[in-house]
Amino acid sequence: MAGKEGSGMVVRYAGRLGVVASVALNLAALALYIRRRFFGGSGSGDGGGGREIATVEPSKGKPLVTPDSVVNLDHGDPTMYEAFWRETGDRATIVIPGCQTMSYFSDVGGFCWFLEPGFEREVRRLHRLVGNAVVDGYHVLVGTGSTQLFQAALYALSPATDGAPMSVVSPAPYYSSYPAVTNFLNSGLYRWAGDANTFDGDTCIELVCSPNNPDGGIRKAVIESKSGKAIHDFAYYWPQYTPITEAAGHDIMLFTVSKCTGHAGTRLGWALVKDREVAQKMIKFIELNTIGVSKDSQLRAAKILGAVCDGYETSLDGEASRLFHFARQQMMERWSKLRAAVAASDIFTLPNELSNYCTFVKETITTNPPFAWLRCEKEGVKDLEGFLREHKIITRGGTKFGVDGRFVRVSMLDTDEAFNVFMDRLASLK
Amino acid sequence: MAGKEGSGMVVRYAGRLGVVASVALNLAALALYIRRRFFGGSGSGDGGGGREIATVEPSKGKPLVTPDSVVNLDHGDPTMYEAFWRETGDRATIVIPGCQTMSYFSDVGGFCWFLEPGFEREVRRLHRLVGNAVVDGYHVLVGTGSTQLFQAALYALSPATDGAPMSVVSPAPYYSSYPAVTNFLNSGLYRWAGDANTFDGDTCIELVCSPNNPDGGIRKAVIESKSGKAIHDFAYYWPQYTPITEAAGHDIMLFTVSKCTGHAGTRLGWALVKDREVAQKMIKFIELNTIGVSKDSQLRAAKILGAVCDGYETSLDGEASRLFHFARQQMMERWSKLRAAVAASDIFTLPNELSNYCTFVKETITTNPPFAWLRCEKEGVKDLEGFLREHKIITRGGTKFGVDGRFVRVSMLDTDEAFNVFMDRLASLK
Repeated sequence: MAGKEGSGMVVRYAGRLGVVASVALNLAALALYIRRRFFGGSGSGDGGGGREIATVEPSKGKPLVTPDSVVNLDHGDPTMYEAFWRETGDRATIVIPGCQTMSYFSDVGGFCWFLEPGFEREVRRLHRLVGNAVVDGYHVLVGTGSTQLFQAALYALSPATDGAPMSVVSPAPYYSSYPAVTNFLNSGLYRWAGDANTFDGDTCIELVCSPNNPDGGIRKAVIESKSGKAIHDFAYYWPQYTPITEAAGHDIMLFTVSKCTGHAGTRLGWALVKDREVAQKMIKFIELNTIGVSKDSQLRAAKILGAVCDGYETSLDGEASRLFHFARQQMMERWSKLRAAVAASDIFTLPNELSNYCTFVKETITTNPPFAWLRCEKEGVKDLEGFLREHKIITRGGTKFGVDGRFVRVSMLDTDEAFNVFMDRLASLK
Repeated sequence: MAGKEGSGMVVRYAGRLGVVASVALNLAALALYIRRRFFGGSGSGDGGGGREIATVEPSKGKPLVTPDSVVNLDHGDPTMYEAFWRETGDRATIVIPGCQTMSYFSDVGGFCWFLEPGFEREVRRLHRLVGNAVVDGYHVLVGTGSTQLFQAALYALSPATDGAPMSVVSPAPYYSSYPAVTNFLNSGLYRWAGDANTFDGDTCIELVCSPNNPDGGIRKAVIESKSGKAIHDFAYYWPQYTPITEAAGHDIMLFTVSKCTGHAGTRLGWALVKDREVAQKMIKFIELNTIGVSKDSQLRAAKILGAVCDGYETSLDGEASRLFHFARQQMMERWSKLRAAVAASDIFTLPNELSNYCTFVKETITTNPPFAWLRCEKEGVKDLEGFLREHKIITRGGTKFGVDGRFVRVSMLDTDEAFNVFMDRLASLK
């Protein structure tokens, strides 16, 4: 049923907007598919899995992966990081009494009334530590994930006239959610216009994702027009994924806790915005969309980001307390295994490995993209997503990213168990 | 600056849509106004106010109210409830270790993949305790406040054809956010069409808010057409505000933690939805808008709602642990003071007091609406909001609710200090 509904939505967008935008985040449909196909509709027992939270029933999350089960690598679900946070103990634990932060307001006299001052402070501290973005002279905004801030930026950058909707573009392959999120409300303010490389209109908003989701490429804006505006999606501009080569200083830069520390369920992103009026319009969007952002998540994220900074600045534990070093080590090992498996196979290829000097770790390092952008060279396989699904590996096919179906995007951020099962299956495919 | 931007937005809506919709939630502008007008731009010191949270810098919230300061009763900021939650101790405290709920998924095999099972369980338990809504046979959905769920419902109920946008109506006086939230993205799916009493189109979505924001009226849908669809906004259908007269069983019913327990900063609402396909489309909206809802807020809300139920079902503390009785007592005292102050003045009137048998408290009780819907009878005062602002009382004027400027809406849910200053000032106005 959910799958049917999802497909219906695709037709609806296409009919309404003339865009062959697939609904990229068809999570509910996928969940039902997995449950029905592989778990026979059960999986709703109250076991809980023995997590340590004492005060509330824990989230069920995803089922454990076994050598025979389906492996869902469709989303960049960053569960790889759990191993790090299990070791941090109380340093990353948040305690919120019942009477705390009940008001809508976080800082009624501040620039952004729903931004927790403690969260803002840790965001600025983290960027100064890592050196990946300029913070002086920037407004910090908070959103329910960077997805909400992306929509807030579209709203802020679209003109207030009665003219045609602003075109929104990104070079293919582009993040599969951009078309669907831009178009789902059929807004008169902005409209998805596809691949930036072939755009020939007068003005547009360009989405610059670097490192790029899905292929890990390092990107600059390709639209040179003076009237064009760029939104820099820096979800993955962290040292575990790519060398830090400069403190970026673009007009609008989006970040997310999900991909930095692994806390996707906290649904917290932030934006660094140079222009005051643009920032004010983004605040207005979030007021109207959700009347601010969860303070519980902001308090927790402040604690988490603070623990990351403390791990570098004040901790005596050495390597064990350094998140980016832990995560980079994990990613390097995974990429090494993946490249070996792909080399052993004769039907897949990957983008070339890149390297550069990283100002954070102070040596030349390779990139370790959060996704493998896998291409199948085997004759007759034009739908790699479907081919892998037959082997119980769930990935996201190239057509959702604006290219052909010989490509798939595979998450590199899941648990060790899921990644290792993926490696075994991949090596067996000929 | 922010005020200027806000006004610009009003013109933009009006120009684009032909609607004289004011931006109801102009919080940033208000915050700046208060700061500049009454605090001289300071108020950003790091004092903190001595709250008890040990692990992160506390939210600054709103400044303390003194007899000379501005009193901001524009929003229904439910800080009145803090006094109750200060007494609950650990029963309402949430502890979240760093490694908890990191995944995007709460329940991959469930109907709503981002809904924490513990939160759903407490929602159903609370409705069974209070008896204000049917839960059997309903899907429970979670949103970033009921504001997000309202938009999700508009998305789900609007037709998937290429025709004109669906009309959205509500009888005046209607909640001031409805027009702005419906129109701010200039969606081709739905469009604000004003007062339901004067609507003469073929089909529409009717927003039924009961008890009604702003005037506390008990409402039923007024559009009888078979093709019309209703969204029931039950933010205030709780025993502290109104007698519970039935377990409501409408197609879509929206609730929010903010107005039930006072935790506005948690930004958590829920919907009870009868139809499976409608619920699936609402889930899809939340996937695309914010990729789910903060798990930290869901865990906290589960704890809070559980503490409310425990207070009635298992606690030995008696009255002190019964939230709705505490809140109803507070509201009764405030309404008694307000009616006395209005009677003492000769320039204001209020809606008549209503009463009915409440199945929850099992006696006949009066309504205690969350807002005072104040009308000024004094000659020459056509802008009551402006008149009260001159006396440093910030309220929301009638034009934002679709009626004339002789009315204002005043929050009854703020702190005792703010309410008492309001009472003193009101009694002095002749």
